[in-house]
Amino acid sequence: MKNLQLSKEGKLKHFLSIEGLSIELLTEILDTAESFAGLPNQQVKKVPLLRGKTIVNLFFENSTRTRTTFELAATRLSADVLSMNIATSATSKGESLLDTIRNLEAMHVDMFVVRHAISGAGHFIAQNTAPHISVINAGDGQHAHPTQAMLDMFTIRQHKQDFTQLKVAIIGDILHSRVARSQIQAFNILGVKEVRVIAPKTLLPSHVESLGVTVFNDIEKGLVDTDVVIMLRLQKERMSAALLPSEREYFKCFGLTEQRLKLANPDAIVMHPGPINRGVEIESNIADGAQSVILQQVSNGIAVRMAIMSLTMQSHGEQI
Amino acid sequence: MKNLQLSKEGKLKHFLSIEGLSIELLTEILDTAESFAGLPNQQVKKVPLLRGKTIVNLFFENSTRTRTTFELAATRLSADVLSMNIATSATSKGESLLDTIRNLEAMHVDMFVVRHAISGAGHFIAQNTAPHISVINAGDGQHAHPTQAMLDMFTIRQHKQDFTQLKVAIIGDILHSRVARSQIQAFNILGVKEVRVIAPKTLLPSHVESLGVTVFNDIEKGLVDTDVVIMLRLQKERMSAALLPSEREYFKCFGLTEQRLKLANPDAIVMHPGPINRGVEIESNIADGAQSVILQQVSNGIAVRMAIMSLTMQSHGEQI
Amino acid sequence: MKNLQLSKEGKLKHFLSIEGLSIELLTEILDTAESFAGLPNQQVKKVPLLRGKTIVNLFFENSTRTRTTFELAATRLSADVLSMNIATSATSKGESLLDTIRNLEAMHVDMFVVRHAISGAGHFIAQNTAPHISVINAGDGQHAHPTQAMLDMFTIRQHKQDFTQLKVAIIGDILHSRVARSQIQAFNILGVKEVRVIAPKTLLPSHVESLGVTVFNDIEKGLVDTDVVIMLRLQKERMSAALLPSEREYFKCFGLTEQRLKLANPDAIVMHPGPINRGVEIESNIADGAQSVILQQVSNGIAVRMAIMSLTMQSHGEQI
Repeated sequence: MKNLQLSKEGKLKHFLSIEGLSIELLTEILDTAESFAGLPNQQVKKVPLLRGKTIVNLFFENSTRTRTTFELAATRLSADVLSMNIATSATSKGESLLDTIRNLEAMHVDMFVVRHAISGAGHFIAQNTAPHISVINAGDGQHAHPTQAMLDMFTIRQHKQDFTQLKVAIIGDILHSRVARSQIQAFNILGVKEVRVIAPKTLLPSHVESLGVTVFNDIEKGLVDTDVVIMLRLQKERMSAALLPSEREYFKCFGLTEQRLKLANPDAIVMHPGPINRGVEIESNIADGAQSVILQQVSNGIAVRMAIMSLTMQSHGEQI
Repeated sequence: MKNLQLSKEGKLKHFLSIEGLSIELLTEILDTAESFAGLPNQQVKKVPLLRGKTIVNLFFENSTRTRTTFELAATRLSADVLSMNIATSATSKGESLLDTIRNLEAMHVDMFVVRHAISGAGHFIAQNTAPHISVINAGDGQHAHPTQAMLDMFTIRQHKQDFTQLKVAIIGDILHSRVARSQIQAFNILGVKEVRVIAPKTLLPSHVESLGVTVFNDIEKGLVDTDVVIMLRLQKERMSAALLPSEREYFKCFGLTEQRLKLANPDAIVMHPGPINRGVEIESNIADGAQSVILQQVSNGIAVRMAIMSLTMQSHGEQI
Repeated sequence: MKNLQLSKEGKLKHFLSIEGLSIELLTEILDTAESFAGLPNQQVKKVPLLRGKTIVNLFFENSTRTRTTFELAATRLSADVLSMNIATSATSKGESLLDTIRNLEAMHVDMFVVRHAISGAGHFIAQNTAPHISVINAGDGQHAHPTQAMLDMFTIRQHKQDFTQLKVAIIGDILHSRVARSQIQAFNILGVKEVRVIAPKTLLPSHVESLGVTVFNDIEKGLVDTDVVIMLRLQKERMSAALLPSEREYFKCFGLTEQRLKLANPDAIVMHPGPINRGVEIESNIADGAQSVILQQVSNGIAVRMAIMSLTMQSHGEQI
């Protein structure tokens, strides 16, 4: 099956999932992001690459933080941004998703940045939209959050030269995490030595090993000798769903403390997609500590999204 | 009575209603829109015509779709857009409409795009605003929706060369439709051969013939020999108001089906202001079929609104 | 104690409060604002001073009017504006204010415009934010509203050449008014001859004289011989808090009427920060009359905020 994300020439046309992308393509994204990462130090931190393009933030699920980073990335590429909170707009008049898409296409927009509670929403839109439009997945259900995974890879590359020598651990609610799923795929494509997932059994997908990871239920065993420690956000609703006893209990078993972090390599970096729950999945002094790269992840999020936006637009050839 | 919409030199200063405008003026709008219609195929689909102008979307009635088209039109003219959802803002502090207008004037804004549930709201603002400001009616009560009517005329002109040879039918809730009212006025000014309205008696204004239309209560008789078929959106609240028995019954009597469309001329075009209710006023395969120009209407909406915005701003002379 | 608002070179870095600023600095703000005041008469009413800068409107308290003036000021300086209604966004995911600030910093924003119900919120953010970021207080609790005070000073200077010859009266709810507090500080720094506050005892802070004002409980005595009459907005919630008997009673005792205004100097100007309650604190024909400069205050609000935004950005030196 042809990868929906790629143009006939193999260029990145949509960015929906890490799955099926080549190491060359991921590296091209990281290299392009690097060219944008220095922009904030320039006198004018904008480039005219997407001037006149209209980028639509189609957020069916509210997320101020993610929407903001996409909006800033688009603005710094000089694109015009239309932010639509779909939950509260057109669909309230009973219009179908496809009709909403058709109408926006007719208004000659160039890109959809899609956030949706249903897995596959971005794919569905990409399959059904006009050929001149690019679709970027900003998080779909429990499926994928590929721009988050790429900004994580970018941040890791800033600190660790060689992916193939790395042992990484992802800690927390693997079962419900689209972030973790996308990270695991990226790590495997980039040839990371070992990907570990550390979680209680109730928060692990069945057959999780088939994703290419080693499973640990004990955080202290899992952290030993790791170079990258990725904490996941604990959704409070897991407690009410009886998957977990309490926040305090979770922190006791799976929270990242100073003592536990000592089990990892001394130059290990600590990551988190944010927003963090201090004292639930991570101790405050670790989050703000010397090994934390959490705020670098946020900064890199702009550069990486600028890279993905400009690359997908370039795939349309004459249009840029 | 002097037409409030025209400057002393007869230029379009506000755009509030089709009523009272000359055929020359409507044609100037359509010709200007044509110059903008090709813009989306350019490398940069913006023109600097309204750079530095501030356009305020004053939406007292929520309408994501209409607001979006005005916002895109303004952005592509390089204007700055301020979108105010008035229902939820200043007036909650008890400020009067006039005080809100006075304050925005004092901030040196250049244009109000007004959507309001009360007929005449745009006129009221135009009468009471500073001379350098233009007001555009984006739908007022059941009175008028003149930019919608003009984008419909533009779409018809793309398909049918000569208005004076056309038979057009408007089908549905004529009584409550500001769109129909504006369309009928435009058709009469442009000299259309025959304007038919097709509706159940409960959805027709009294003395509707005085608007210059022929009335049909039977869709099959009304469609015969028409060149343009315009469906109106059925507001679900008409059922609860006991004006209609049910959606299914309505579709049975007044829905546009493939079979019925055969009664019109073979090259008839099908229009709808959107959003469509599939299976209520129109069959899905007609809405998406070869004779449908519904999505062209959406595209043309941007070009026509750009034309109206730039023409009204030009009327202030030295200001552009 | 070093003034948090000033850079090492004594330049305005943040704008949080009038308190502690020199007459030279206030005059520099007024002079800079004057250079922007003529902009709306230019063909393109924008300057490229802050092109590429990202200004974040951090509104923890809703205020369409104030947010709009800051947004317009930023847009006319060619900055990019990110408007965040914090009440309904990130903090709903339980993120702390400091984490929100850290994240926005990491996105390389340049300025926070902060509105908050808690006094000192702007100071707190300024103390805790990165050195390249400026913070502007757009109203914090009952503490300060310094941009409002400066636009008032600007408006007064347009009408009255010499501050040192002026007698000014501030009338109304002094106790709860951040506007009054900032105005009194500005008047004292600019060397105004006499600042009077006129209010019922229930709406005066204790030891109000220590602010450098003369107290009147009788509006008719207080108005005699004044050059500037500033009315404050009466918050309706004061009635339910039993600080006042009724709106009608308030107007009878402290409302500005034509008759009362005659007690002031014949060329006295009437001011109000808006939105006005017609017939509560001020008679309609005074608000709209020849001595009223209320709408000039609104216009000047844009120029003064442009001045403060560009001055604080300039304080970072190489960054502009």
